[in-house]
Amino acid sequence: MKPLQNDRFLKALLRQPVDMTPVWMMRQAGRYLPEYRATRQQAGDFMSLCQAPDLACEVTLQPLERFELDAAILFSDILTIPDAMGLGLYFETGEGPKFRKPVATAADVEALPIPNPEDELKYVIDAVRVIRHELNGRVPLIGFSGSPWTLATYMVEGSSTKDFRKIKGMMYSQPEVLHALLDKLADSVISYLNAQIAAGAQAVQIFDTWGGVLTPEAYQAFSLHYMQKIVKGLVRESEGRKVPVILFTKNGGQYLELIAETGADAAGLDWTTDIGDARRRVGDKVALQGNLDPCVLYAQPEQIREQVGVVLEKFGPGPGHVFNLGHGIHPQVNPDHAKAMIDAVHELSAKYHA
Amino acid sequence: MKPLQNDRFLKALLRQPVDMTPVWMMRQAGRYLPEYRATRQQAGDFMSLCQAPDLACEVTLQPLERFELDAAILFSDILTIPDAMGLGLYFETGEGPKFRKPVATAADVEALPIPNPEDELKYVIDAVRVIRHELNGRVPLIGFSGSPWTLATYMVEGSSTKDFRKIKGMMYSQPEVLHALLDKLADSVISYLNAQIAAGAQAVQIFDTWGGVLTPEAYQAFSLHYMQKIVKGLVRESEGRKVPVILFTKNGGQYLELIAETGADAAGLDWTTDIGDARRRVGDKVALQGNLDPCVLYAQPEQIREQVGVVLEKFGPGPGHVFNLGHGIHPQVNPDHAKAMIDAVHELSAKYHA
Repeated sequence: MKPLQNDRFLKALLRQPVDMTPVWMMRQAGRYLPEYRATRQQAGDFMSLCQAPDLACEVTLQPLERFELDAAILFSDILTIPDAMGLGLYFETGEGPKFRKPVATAADVEALPIPNPEDELKYVIDAVRVIRHELNGRVPLIGFSGSPWTLATYMVEGSSTKDFRKIKGMMYSQPEVLHALLDKLADSVISYLNAQIAAGAQAVQIFDTWGGVLTPEAYQAFSLHYMQKIVKGLVRESEGRKVPVILFTKNGGQYLELIAETGADAAGLDWTTDIGDARRRVGDKVALQGNLDPCVLYAQPEQIREQVGVVLEKFGPGPGHVFNLGHGIHPQVNPDHAKAMIDAVHELSAKYHA
Repeated sequence: MKPLQNDRFLKALLRQPVDMTPVWMMRQAGRYLPEYRATRQQAGDFMSLCQAPDLACEVTLQPLERFELDAAILFSDILTIPDAMGLGLYFETGEGPKFRKPVATAADVEALPIPNPEDELKYVIDAVRVIRHELNGRVPLIGFSGSPWTLATYMVEGSSTKDFRKIKGMMYSQPEVLHALLDKLADSVISYLNAQIAAGAQAVQIFDTWGGVLTPEAYQAFSLHYMQKIVKGLVRESEGRKVPVILFTKNGGQYLELIAETGADAAGLDWTTDIGDARRRVGDKVALQGNLDPCVLYAQPEQIREQVGVVLEKFGPGPGHVFNLGHGIHPQVNPDHAKAMIDAVHELSAKYHA
């Protein structure tokens, strides 16, 4: 395998100097790309696409063919772990993910196995190996997992939810059952991410999509605590380089100081936090990743460029910024608008690294 | 009409001493009550219920028959103004509100009338009059409106939305069109709330349900700015008493200092902000309303009481707290659990006002 040709992303995560701000997009391999939709159709359903390492590799690389991205991210789903635990993940057209056997009781939690990444999750680890090989050193590969709290919301609700009724009912009525579930999930995520790292992931991101729906106390006890356990349990070096960890709590802007104390290398920011304020708050403790409002990509290229400039200027000069959207790119976005954003990041950021 | 017998709520909003913390619930007249569901069935659809002052009065009073609430809130919908502007509000079973004629262009905005509250919105103002009469001084009556930004999201999207694609597309591409719409909405809200106050509303709340989906800059420019205009335009005294204004931006915890500067008397808090921190941040500028996680009501009465105690203790001793949920009560909640919360607020709060 060739040595890494573009390490801007890894350096920025460790707050080392770079020539320009690196950029990638959450869900960069996704439905906004016609070539993705074609591969997806070929695969059949969404999980078949995730479970075929060659196809997962194909869609992972698609956005790199179009755009000057500084990182690739493993194409997979956040719910692979609960599925591997036997909950029976399935998707119905036009609806979110569902589980055939949601978790409701202490006995349900007790019965859950910790999946073996090289067995029930081998399709993911194989995808990491295939993608690393095909990337051939072009850009680094990001592995990822959902956070324990985020995985638990789907496992207890049995589906997407707007009100988090069942999981919060469990949290307020039977906190010990939820803690047992989260602890088992944290162990599963550690083993899963370490297997991704061993297979070639060069950085990992923990997606805490639903941490922001909690009270500040509950966030610390039921989400952050288990992410911290994961950070401490990860193998942080591979192939002679540090493997940076990014922790992203959506709607978690108020928790940045706490996130910076977990030992993670970088904090993901959604667009509801001012990245300049965020930098002042975390100082040199962590790098920051973000945080353009994904809806900016519905505007015209000229306006996109302007908004990219605002985010770069807010962060200001010096290292420690990975540019990204504040959440996944929307399926309806014109790919040319994504290109406008990515090119603008590189062009407008050079002056901040002079 | 009898003089007001319980003015705990109005006093707390003005940070005056009270004997115990007043409490009401957002959506306290709602689907979790079987008697509400019966009246609703009698009315036919949701808008028919809103448009019949006697029935709106009936459901407004229902929760007061069950619980020791310290305020009543006008039963109505936040989308009455856009409907009165001619957008054609309708509801389909199991789905959110929709508009037959959404707003898309500068010409659409230009064509919108500012509704006359005593004409197209007379049914709301009549409901205020009937409710005030029937309350007969028992507790104060709260009037309300959606914020301009929140109303505009539905008017431009044409329905509920998860991604705010159209309105943010307008915001980033044609900000001047959106500003024209928001300004017209602010004028409409001023006239609407002043009519509610003239008809007997003793406090008013502005619901900024969607202000929290914006970037900090956009929040100030597209949501807060217009709420500030409204606060300045309201008649703040009626029947020899001050009419307090509550401003509630969901997911707006980071903007409390800004909200406190608008001239509003109180800031509503959802459950993602620590109310003790919030009090330290706003000092004596505004009262605070909130902020129990509505999902606490899925737990058992004993646990509900405990969580009420946590919120009261966080706020601490002295005036300036109106207890509430951090958002509307969920339709699936057992009414006895709401009672457990309300009774706990009164019982546990007396010591903080000794």
